[in-house]
Amino acid sequence: MSDLLTQLQWRYATKKMDPARAVPAEKVDRILEAIRLTASSSGLQPYTVLVVTNPEVRAKIRAHAWDQAQITDGSHLLVFAAWDHYTPERINAMFDLVNEERGFRSEGWEAYRQKLLSTYPLRSPEDNFQHAARQAYIGLGTALIAAAEEAVDATPMEGFEPHKVDEILGLKDKGLRSVVILPLGYRAAEGDWLVDLKKVRRPRSEFVIEVK
Amino acid sequence: MSDLLTQLQWRYATKKMDPARAVPAEKVDRILEAIRLTASSSGLQPYTVLVVTNPEVRAKIRAHAWDQAQITDGSHLLVFAAWDHYTPERINAMFDLVNEERGFRSEGWEAYRQKLLSTYPLRSPEDNFQHAARQAYIGLGTALIAAAEEAVDATPMEGFEPHKVDEILGLKDKGLRSVVILPLGYRAAEGDWLVDLKKVRRPRSEFVIEVK
Repeated sequence: MSDLLTQLQWRYATKKMDPARAVPAEKVDRILEAIRLTASSSGLQPYTVLVVTNPEVRAKIRAHAWDQAQITDGSHLLVFAAWDHYTPERINAMFDLVNEERGFRSEGWEAYRQKLLSTYPLRSPEDNFQHAARQAYIGLGTALIAAAEEAVDATPMEGFEPHKVDEILGLKDKGLRSVVILPLGYRAAEGDWLVDLKKVRRPRSEFVIEVK
Repeated sequence: MSDLLTQLQWRYATKKMDPARAVPAEKVDRILEAIRLTASSSGLQPYTVLVVTNPEVRAKIRAHAWDQAQITDGSHLLVFAAWDHYTPERINAMFDLVNEERGFRSEGWEAYRQKLLSTYPLRSPEDNFQHAARQAYIGLGTALIAAAEEAVDATPMEGFEPHKVDEILGLKDKGLRSVVILPLGYRAAEGDWLVDLKKVRRPRSEFVIEVK
């Protein structure tokens, strides 16, 4: 499927996925690669994407997510888990990686590192988590398009108990907190109340303000 | 430019834009349409996108945004401004629009409306703003891809004083708060320190965790 606007029109928050159809690994790989490549604040990529295929683990998550069937009817569950804080270690690791990959250190880049080191870790963990969570949503927006490009259905979900999901996936020990989950799969041939309904958006005149 | 991964590889946070080249209106329109079509929590689209072309207004914003030149060297500045709160009026307006566009009311949809009405407005404005801001970041992620598809450069910026930008654009009276800004333009032929540097991302093995 080509053309971004066509992809965005095609996709919808699939309500009923076909449990008999699995998304091929190479499609999931390209979706993950799109998320990995997209932008984040200062390039820190302050989140991890968990790809849960294990059926028991997904059943446990479903029990703490309003029993939404796509979590187990889909074949893959992406869990976007944001950093619980910006620590000097995490900031340094990313700046060091950039230097290593580019093969040099620059004064400007090192000054920028010091700027982040002297501000981010001093903010509250909650403020930092909120900031990191926003970056994960850039990844989410990217994933929705990447899935549509692969003709894969995807249903973003905020309706789950983050603490429970964190517990099930052992995220706390990793310094991560779940922020949004995204089952991947294929729409079922029948039983989806949303599939044939019109996609409704605010008209452009109400969504956009021009300042000329 | 086709293929999402190619687009994501091509784009970067352009540091120097060519002030002599303006992005054609039809390209900006398609970028805005992509943002308008993308997903948001419960479909509420809890943000507005301001398109600032006025040079004086952009100069004022630049003065409160670390003097970043892309704000005035680009031809368009997108300002993502999130709702400052979820009010019953805003929730009802969206549910009413959906009913109107689809031509019917359903019990399930009305029950969902009541669920949101009985929870969202009771949360603190700050919590609701944070939630709305995340949705704007889905739009941001979408905008970056839409711009790349049009071979338009775009530089996401969080480095600005939101209160000042809100003041300049009169956002408070509209119940909006600026969260991220995005100049659109074309990379300059010279003078961009970042353009030739390698895009660095955490390797997939560190960015993705598989739970099999």
